[in-house]
Amino acid sequence: MTRGLGGLFRGVQSLTSLPATRAGLGHPSACVSLRTMVALPSFLSFEPRDFSLPNSSWSSEMLRLYEQYSIQCEVETEGGENRGGQWQRLPSYNRSLKYATGGNYLSKIIQSKARLFTRNIRDPGAGFEYVVFANKEEKRCVCIFQAGHRLEGPPGHVHGGATATMIDTVTGSLAALLSGPVMTANLNINYRSAIPLGSTVLIETSLDSEEGRKKFISCKVTSTDGSKLHTEATALFLSINISHLLQGG
Amino acid sequence: MTRGLGGLFRGVQSLTSLPATRAGLGHPSACVSLRTMVALPSFLSFEPRDFSLPNSSWSSEMLRLYEQYSIQCEVETEGGENRGGQWQRLPSYNRSLKYATGGNYLSKIIQSKARLFTRNIRDPGAGFEYVVFANKEEKRCVCIFQAGHRLEGPPGHVHGGATATMIDTVTGSLAALLSGPVMTANLNINYRSAIPLGSTVLIETSLDSEEGRKKFISCKVTSTDGSKLHTEATALFLSINISHLLQGG
Repeated sequence: MTRGLGGLFRGVQSLTSLPATRAGLGHPSACVSLRTMVALPSFLSFEPRDFSLPNSSWSSEMLRLYEQYSIQCEVETEGGENRGGQWQRLPSYNRSLKYATGGNYLSKIIQSKARLFTRNIRDPGAGFEYVVFANKEEKRCVCIFQAGHRLEGPPGHVHGGATATMIDTVTGSLAALLSGPVMTANLNINYRSAIPLGSTVLIETSLDSEEGRKKFISCKVTSTDGSKLHTEATALFLSINISHLLQGG
Repeated sequence: MTRGLGGLFRGVQSLTSLPATRAGLGHPSACVSLRTMVALPSFLSFEPRDFSLPNSSWSSEMLRLYEQYSIQCEVETEGGENRGGQWQRLPSYNRSLKYATGGNYLSKIIQSKARLFTRNIRDPGAGFEYVVFANKEEKRCVCIFQAGHRLEGPPGHVHGGATATMIDTVTGSLAALLSGPVMTANLNINYRSAIPLGSTVLIETSLDSEEGRKKFISCKVTSTDGSKLHTEATALFLSINISHLLQGG
């Protein structure tokens, strides 16, 4: 039976958290993302802004950690082969489907004004500044997150919902890296210590177990030296079949 | 022992979710909020924008529900007495402490650029449009939430982190209404059905139990007619002593 859009998105939460592989370094067997699955027509082939690249707002600590993981990333040689580290940086755009074309359903959901929640503020440093590095072999991701002044909850500190948003994003990126399109089914978050606005923290996630379509993932948010635990969480993701979306029904 | 700012905010997540009572309708015995606790000096007594009032972006459904609860709110008579319904609308500003004055610690944390996460987009309709009504006698709150296009997660639908943010906000408002300043200790969220961008939903919360400083609160997000369950959650809040903050140590 053809499922309409309402049915397709029943419970889907993290579809736009899907990581795209680095340009030219695709791993089609595992990292199935909207971005890599949808070919761009040539007249639309300008490069959208990758928000996971450094900008002027990044603190020296953020830059230091970015460099630390970047040098462990795989690189493409002149011969076209990949070699090097086990890590890959996951690019991040402000709308997964903005540049895509597709069937009836796809065209209906391309709303030009819509923006990915975590990338909806263009002012560098004001909102979520983050980059996710993935280690597929070890089934884990590390996110370097710098919290901007527009994410306030308690005075001077990050809102619990903003922390939850980053946890959903990073755990969802790992789930999608391992099994393609997913939806968030559960987030269980324990808040231990508030995150000061402007600070840089590490968000580390790893796969706990798998069971059919289910991925159980754990996550912790700490200071960059690991000495202070801010938040602990578990997440459950369900694999979904993205082909319904791309085939228009 | 005097606790510094770092200690004070250990684990605090929802301080700025504290509801302020309606102007002139204060319930100082229970609704202890930063706004009502801190007197404004006369030269700063202009009115900040209350984001919980209707604006041009609100859908007819949002307006209808707003009216439905508004007419059940208590009103102040000419004689200064309160009479009428059991509900009260909770005003909402983009920074709880922006207009406050206080001790050393308070002045240190007033960062003019900081904005409450849920009110950080001024463009009406683009982000979180919501109003919270509280029924103190029944120990519950209802939030009418219209999801803007900048809250996207899955294409055309609300990000799981944005839903978590609203759940934290509404459950935290109830906890603060019942026991003053609180912090979020746990959020446990089950996602059942994604929320379409642009739609209006109801977020209903009620107190499940209390145990010392702990408040256990449950929450569900549904379509406005209650027929479709989008999200279910439980939340745990801990009471904190806000006087440390206001007294500057």
